[in-house]
Amino acid sequence: MSLDALLDDHDGLALAELIRRGEIAAPELLEAVIARIEARNPAVNAVVHRAYDEARAELTARDPATPFAGLPFLVKDLYSFRKGWPCGNGSDWFADYRAPFDDPMVARWHAAGLTVMGKTATSEFGLNVSTETRRHGPTRNPWSLEHSAGGSSGGAAAAVAAGMVPFAHASDGGGSIRIPASCCGLFGLKPSRGRNPTSDAWAGLAVFHAVSRSVRDSAALLDAVCGPPRHHPFCLPKPEEPFIAAAGRDPRRLRIAWTAKTPEDVDLHPECRAAVERAAALAAELGHDVEEAAPEIDHQLLRQAMITIVAANMADALGPDNPLLPEGAREGQVETITWRFAERGATIPAAQYLRAVQAVRQIGERLAAFMTRYDVLMTPTLAQPPMRLGLLDTMADDFDGFNRAVLPYVTFTQMFNMSGQPAASVPLHWTPEGLPVGVQIAAAVGEEARLFALAGQFERALPWFARRPSR
Amino acid sequence: MSLDALLDDHDGLALAELIRRGEIAAPELLEAVIARIEARNPAVNAVVHRAYDEARAELTARDPATPFAGLPFLVKDLYSFRKGWPCGNGSDWFADYRAPFDDPMVARWHAAGLTVMGKTATSEFGLNVSTETRRHGPTRNPWSLEHSAGGSSGGAAAAVAAGMVPFAHASDGGGSIRIPASCCGLFGLKPSRGRNPTSDAWAGLAVFHAVSRSVRDSAALLDAVCGPPRHHPFCLPKPEEPFIAAAGRDPRRLRIAWTAKTPEDVDLHPECRAAVERAAALAAELGHDVEEAAPEIDHQLLRQAMITIVAANMADALGPDNPLLPEGAREGQVETITWRFAERGATIPAAQYLRAVQAVRQIGERLAAFMTRYDVLMTPTLAQPPMRLGLLDTMADDFDGFNRAVLPYVTFTQMFNMSGQPAASVPLHWTPEGLPVGVQIAAAVGEEARLFALAGQFERALPWFARRPSR
Repeated sequence: MSLDALLDDHDGLALAELIRRGEIAAPELLEAVIARIEARNPAVNAVVHRAYDEARAELTARDPATPFAGLPFLVKDLYSFRKGWPCGNGSDWFADYRAPFDDPMVARWHAAGLTVMGKTATSEFGLNVSTETRRHGPTRNPWSLEHSAGGSSGGAAAAVAAGMVPFAHASDGGGSIRIPASCCGLFGLKPSRGRNPTSDAWAGLAVFHAVSRSVRDSAALLDAVCGPPRHHPFCLPKPEEPFIAAAGRDPRRLRIAWTAKTPEDVDLHPECRAAVERAAALAAELGHDVEEAAPEIDHQLLRQAMITIVAANMADALGPDNPLLPEGAREGQVETITWRFAERGATIPAAQYLRAVQAVRQIGERLAAFMTRYDVLMTPTLAQPPMRLGLLDTMADDFDGFNRAVLPYVTFTQMFNMSGQPAASVPLHWTPEGLPVGVQIAAAVGEEARLFALAGQFERALPWFARRPSR
Repeated sequence: MSLDALLDDHDGLALAELIRRGEIAAPELLEAVIARIEARNPAVNAVVHRAYDEARAELTARDPATPFAGLPFLVKDLYSFRKGWPCGNGSDWFADYRAPFDDPMVARWHAAGLTVMGKTATSEFGLNVSTETRRHGPTRNPWSLEHSAGGSSGGAAAAVAAGMVPFAHASDGGGSIRIPASCCGLFGLKPSRGRNPTSDAWAGLAVFHAVSRSVRDSAALLDAVCGPPRHHPFCLPKPEEPFIAAAGRDPRRLRIAWTAKTPEDVDLHPECRAAVERAAALAAELGHDVEEAAPEIDHQLLRQAMITIVAANMADALGPDNPLLPEGAREGQVETITWRFAERGATIPAAQYLRAVQAVRQIGERLAAFMTRYDVLMTPTLAQPPMRLGLLDTMADDFDGFNRAVLPYVTFTQMFNMSGQPAASVPLHWTPEGLPVGVQIAAAVGEEARLFALAGQFERALPWFARRPSR
């Protein structure tokens, strides 16, 4: 089988196993991945920084006994620092920035046997749920080039869906792993808060992990890198049993609540309803106890808290004496919506910020109480199928309009950033036009294993791995 | 032996064991404790709320198989909610407040076999490191009634040092467990951030635990109640080995750094230097590797961050629509310094608060790096012996003067609230006048066991249990 065909038919763990057995050579696999990126990236615009020579040099000294044996890996270009590399954060303002140090995650990816060979597109500072920046232009959905790959980890999802790499780093502060996973027909799990290193940025709403084609790759990657430094504010220990074990066996009989209920001002697309209803029926067929039920969430409180937290953090990030670019941003250096967030943030008093954090905890407690009655809460990932490019315009000067327009894409995702629960988008449905529609499953904080087990069961029942966009 | 004499000679675990063996009855012990409080509290003013009848009623249904078998327990009157009970927070503003719900810690203390029978004095909202409020007047040091018991957990420390109870709940956001422990000749351990439930209040600087006469009581109490709810921002799991085991055996040979270095504007009292030098010599005699070394801390950055965090949190707590007293405070309802903190806090923008939290993390990382080279960092707990009552006046309108005056009492303690490290004050020294002077030991985040082991070794080498203030 050619290396190119192997890339289609194998996930990351399978490729690593072939390297370990000597059936393929890691440097040759890297060249095949480079060739794919060069061939396919022009259509989708997923990769915004190439580090082929660094990757080639790094590969010469790889230990094949690592979990991923040298497998090529792409990192999202949002606050992912590798010393001397650009970190553009999707922004003209950061065009010339070079990271002064390595993020500890870089060392962990390396220790897991991954070869970082490039960086993927993000919306500017992760603010937009579609990845189409002034800096890099639109990232296109491999399933339909007029559609968005989602965001903010749109580059990662487009790269994986286009077959460049089996999985890629992504991060999620309001849905930014799950939204592009849903848009691109991938598995995307947002881990519990604190499972991976989790900082105070965005009040702890944002976590790192990945989008992937297979469930088990996601589990194995989390096994390889999870565990926060102890001085971080949010901490969960490594699980006693590896996640990969959970991904490989059926879960016990679960109590599953499902809902497709949206707030009054958010329309639900019939295909999104169909996706979750189908998944609920499948779960019942698989022997789980399934019922329609939803937690009571104060969506107005949640939205206000989210805007307060993001705006205050943008005022911090763009303000003078920030640790990365201490001169601060000027209006024209960032997208219009980004600037408006920072302007809004500069008017927010500290006490209002603290109230927003209290609202986050209140929503977290509400969801924790709901999860004492159910093992899993299942929803559509998005209230709408993948958005057309141009719909979410961060250069139009309409702050309120922008924040309204993103609601269908975050209404099911943001609450789990607030609660810190693990939540995953599972690619279980496609529209008649062939656009992917994900189903979201969420469990209690710390219960990623349950999600890996259920997603693995779904994957075996309704395999999606062989379903790929046509090229 | 009379119950009264038993209270002098036994720690909490020993008393619980006597109850379990049927040698004393829990209700009789409760009456002996009540008698002691009634006899001794007028001199020290430690207990500000009595709940004798509730305790008597609760005791009738106690399970002697719990770790503390019904032992009487006092709770610090600062944000410790028991449904229907007052929670005064040391403030006139809260004089009529009744808690609308139980704090989860109340359930944990109950499950550990403790009988909550009253509440102890705190400085107003924990802001002062001496406990002398407009609401309740001065809490006096049992070792010298003109001196302060320290704060903010001054009532807890005075109650334990006066022999009312063997240990009592305390909390620590800048030193409020360790400072009164040092002032009153007690053991006071501030656990790691997240070991007990730890909220966002004060940016996670504040944690709950206790002051005690014996090291093992502190270890056993932490064993019984630790472990945060998973939706809390800061989390550490229960340790694999109970802390009580660590408290009972000598530690392995430790690398101990000690320092008595203060910032230029903080004077070190010779007795405080003598205390830490004596402890360092003792540690060396006990076989540890001891050397003088100190982390480089930016004290100006630390102090500014602390004032920013406390002021913003006071603006939140005293502002309108706060969750406890939504009408908000008026100027005369709180002490002058408290009001000035809230005024200052109302001027702080959210982005400045976020920068203060970043400074906290930066100091945490600096200390974490230092602790890779040493197992324990040892300092005086305070730069001065216990303060005279009246020195730290929260009714005088001098915000900057007040914040300068507290420096000698927080200069060694606050950094470990910022880093989230466990740190304990150990009663190893007394001045020639008979005033207690504590020695602080700190370890890396999560390493409480090491502190219990070292403190236990010190306790066996230089027993302090029988040393009690004269009455």
